[in-house]
Order: sequence, then C-alpha cells, then structure tokens
Amino acid sequence: MSLNPALEPVRFLVGTWRGDGAGEYPTIDSFTYTEEVSFVDVGKPFLVYSQRTWSPEGRPLHIETGYLRVIKYETIEFVLAQPTGQTELAEGTIDLHPTGFDIELSSTVVNSASAKQVDATRRELHLAGDTLTTSFAMAAVGVEMTHHLSATLVRQSS
Amino acid sequence: MSLNPALEPVRFLVGTWRGDGAGEYPTIDSFTYTEEVSFVDVGKPFLVYSQRTWSPEGRPLHIETGYLRVIKYETIEFVLAQPTGQTELAEGTIDLHPTGFDIELSSTVVNSASAKQVDATRRELHLAGDTLTTSFAMAAVGVEMTHHLSATLVRQSS
Repeated sequence: MSLNPALEPVRFLVGTWRGDGAGEYPTIDSFTYTEEVSFVDVGKPFLVYSQRTWSPEGRPLHIETGYLRVIKYETIEFVLAQPTGQTELAEGTIDLHPTGFDIELSSTVVNSASAKQVDATRRELHLAGDTLTTSFAMAAVGVEMTHHLSATLVRQSS
Repeated sequence: MSLNPALEPVRFLVGTWRGDGAGEYPTIDSFTYTEEVSFVDVGKPFLVYSQRTWSPEGRPLHIETGYLRVIKYETIEFVLAQPTGQTELAEGTIDLHPTGFDIELSSTVVNSASAKQVDATRRELHLAGDTLTTSFAMAAVGVEMTHHLSATLVRQSS
C-alpha cells in the first residue's frame, strides 16, 4: 500500500518508536518513564497515533490516542483523546530539514466535568534520522504554561 | 485481570461488536455501512474505544478512537478523536436496566482550522443482551441538530 501523498512530509514517522522520558511539574515529584509510540498508515491522509508509557518498574502509566493530519504540506493537526478526560486539538507547523523535521503545536483543550483542569498544551516533535525527540508543556491546575515531559525515542520498526 | 470496579456499569460492553448501519443528513445522499466497534479493558478505570466502518463494497469509510470513562456509577464521559479534524467530548448519563443500559451523551466539539465545521453532537448507546444499538446526531455545516447515523451491532467476542 503506497502512502497517501498528503503524508509525504511525515513519511519517516510511520512505525514504532521506543525510549525513555522524564517528567516534571511544579505540583508533582519529578519522575522517569519508558514510552512507546506508533504512527500507523491506514491508506488515508492521516496517521493513526497511539502512545503508552510505563514506570521504570514496568507499571502502566499513561496512554493516549488520536490522529496526525498533514494539511497542505506545512500545517500539522494532531487530534487527541486522553483517558484522563481531556480532548486536545493541537495545531501548528512542520519545518522539514534534510534528515527529518521539527513540528511545533499549540492545543485547544476541553476538560470533562470530572477531569483535572488542563487549560492549554504545547507539543514538539523533532525527527533526526532514526531518533524522535518529543516535548510536552501544559498550563494546568492553576500553573501557567510549564514544561512537563520530554522523551527520546528510537525507531523500532517501520 | 479483573475489571476496574468503576467499570461495573459497562461490564457487558467489553468486547467487539459488529453490524450494519444507515446514514443520512440533509446535505448528503443517504447510505448504508458495516461497522465494527471494540471496547477494550486495559485494567484502568476506562475502556479503550475504537471504531471502523466500511461501505457495502468493503471500502474503508470512517474510523474514530478514544476512551469511555465511568464517573460515580451514573455519569459517562466519552473522549473522542476524529481523523476528520474534530475532538469530541461527550458527557451524559447511564441508566441501567436488567439486560443492559441506555447511555445518552451530548458533546463539546472542537474543529481544526481545516475541518468541516461540526458545532455539537449527540450520541446514544443502548445495550440489550448481546445487541448494541447506537445513534449519532450532529449540528454541522449550518444544519441544526439532526439525526445522522444509526447502527445495530451484535457481540462478536468478549
């Protein structure tokens, strides 16, 4: 199955990525984790995204899922559902370079009535060869936009 | 792995469901489709939801994904990502009855800049034994809240 032409800018993202991350936020203790991310081509003009993290002891922590859309070769839309009760619509740009890309996104978040309040998030994905580095900041629970997570992932399969 | 106690009201939803559906909307031709839905227990207080539909000829149509949360035995939150560029936070109630339940949800929708405009949606899920019937209405593209999709699904596995 050939990739939808719209996905050409993120062609090298297709596959499974795994590595380690670190988290911090003013309201919690800092922590480390293992992360696995996959971007799956289903023959449509978007990739299916899923993510899982585990504690260093192997205890399941977070999961999230959604779709990565490429609009007109320069605009990225990352549509996400969070099991913690938030939807997150992250929109921004992709800058291509010879060995990868830089994606920077800002999100509109909707919180369910029972969820902890997240006001907004920012996400970055930087691809360089077979290494994907990600970072995530959020304004939440009364704290202004602050770095929360960063991870360095290595390609497992494609 | 025993089910998280929070999920007791939706215990019988866990599994894969498949059947036929019909769609209509004032702006499009009516159509029929085949649908497969799964609700997966991952040991957390939510179910992982994924859905796929196909045309009668087997051509992939829609997919969507997210999480079903149960809050205090009476409130349901359905957190959804759409590859068409929308997030959908559907909140409402569950009414239990001897052979199943009725869930009714109203959604807050966020549209990406490139997406067709969906203003709001309503979702119903009715479980009776091994039959799950679903309906979906939306206010979109200038049309007020109007029925769009209904499907009758039968349990495939649990």
